[in-house]
Amino acid sequence: MNIVAKRLEELGLRLPKAAAPVANYVACVRSGALLFVSGQLPFGSDGKIAAELTGKLAADSPIEPATAAARQCAINLLAQAQSALGDLDRVARVVRLGGFFAIEGRFERLPQAMNGASDLMADVFGERGRHVRTTVGVAHLPLDALAEVEGLFEIAP
Amino acid sequence: MNIVAKRLEELGLRLPKAAAPVANYVACVRSGALLFVSGQLPFGSDGKIAAELTGKLAADSPIEPATAAARQCAINLLAQAQSALGDLDRVARVVRLGGFFAIEGRFERLPQAMNGASDLMADVFGERGRHVRTTVGVAHLPLDALAEVEGLFEIAP
Amino acid sequence: MNIVAKRLEELGLRLPKAAAPVANYVACVRSGALLFVSGQLPFGSDGKIAAELTGKLAADSPIEPATAAARQCAINLLAQAQSALGDLDRVARVVRLGGFFAIEGRFERLPQAMNGASDLMADVFGERGRHVRTTVGVAHLPLDALAEVEGLFEIAP
Repeated sequence: MNIVAKRLEELGLRLPKAAAPVANYVACVRSGALLFVSGQLPFGSDGKIAAELTGKLAADSPIEPATAAARQCAINLLAQAQSALGDLDRVARVVRLGGFFAIEGRFERLPQAMNGASDLMADVFGERGRHVRTTVGVAHLPLDALAEVEGLFEIAP
Repeated sequence: MNIVAKRLEELGLRLPKAAAPVANYVACVRSGALLFVSGQLPFGSDGKIAAELTGKLAADSPIEPATAAARQCAINLLAQAQSALGDLDRVARVVRLGGFFAIEGRFERLPQAMNGASDLMADVFGERGRHVRTTVGVAHLPLDALAEVEGLFEIAP
Repeated sequence: MNIVAKRLEELGLRLPKAAAPVANYVACVRSGALLFVSGQLPFGSDGKIAAELTGKLAADSPIEPATAAARQCAINLLAQAQSALGDLDRVARVVRLGGFFAIEGRFERLPQAMNGASDLMADVFGERGRHVRTTVGVAHLPLDALAEVEGLFEIAP
């Protein structure tokens, strides 16, 4: 009962209020057993994107803001899924994450950056958190965010 | 009967002939209840991409061509879905749109640009048109298009 | 029996050992009839990405390395699917490929480049290999790869 809620508490993680989409779409759509979640930006619990989680990664950028941005996007995916499902224990599997990072020129540590999101899913869901993913560096993201992560979850019957 | 067709008529929208894929793939694949549609470019009904819907968005670009490009991609998604399904009334839900915009440097209004596609789905399908989406700015798109949008639809049993 | 294995042999294709994910995620997740495969990089059978399959495409880049990179990513998708399924004859359909190419400035022949992946699926699976796809040019890819391709397969019951 409330396994995921307890795990979030152990991790010291409080899910923010699910952010309203910034335009004319919805955060989650369920189709059969699949729950699709819109690309999430690294909004904090104050509803703003911290300045250090905006801009673009470059060759000499530190890894920490990139990882933190991906992690925050993942937290927001969970907030959206929680809001749609009522209870994250209904998640049978994290199926897929799609990670986009804003890059100018080059940034060598994209996989480590995306681990900010992947590690969170593993920490929260354990084996059920093991997902496929695609990570790419893009030219620009909405609201000048450093990262955007979309999610796909399988819901238990 | 023909609810969507009537709605398209009310909107003054005539779907173009579904464009043949520009290379070795198909426009639509159905798997179970899901209809996947290839990324669509903003071809007009003359089979060409208008010059103003090509190139790259930049900091000082106007919003109109970006929105128009996304809308045209969405129209082409509908044309493909119509061609695959025979009747758009079979669409139970627009599940997801993935929007890519060609950007040089930065362009602040990506979400508004993508609304060109999202608003069309809402206008045509109403509640069934409410979808999740992911919007990113990329480095370059096929045929120098300003936008490319892929779609995922749920088909009624 | 072993139709795909025989076809691979006819094509002179030996699938490499499925590469371990380069970070904290898995290569394949099955959900219902769908097999999702993580974005694959153009690793060769020696476990390395050949120098000519790294870097970025530009206006004057030749097409061959771009096509070869996409093809190698597709081979690695098959290696992952084979590893997950045991037998590629279980693939009922290649549903979707998502192709990302690292581009600096512009590169006119993205669709032809992506055919490196699409043609391989058609060669290996015939009619079952006909898929939808989305092809975009991005700013940077993990390990400086020229291409990354993700896959979605439908598995026979």
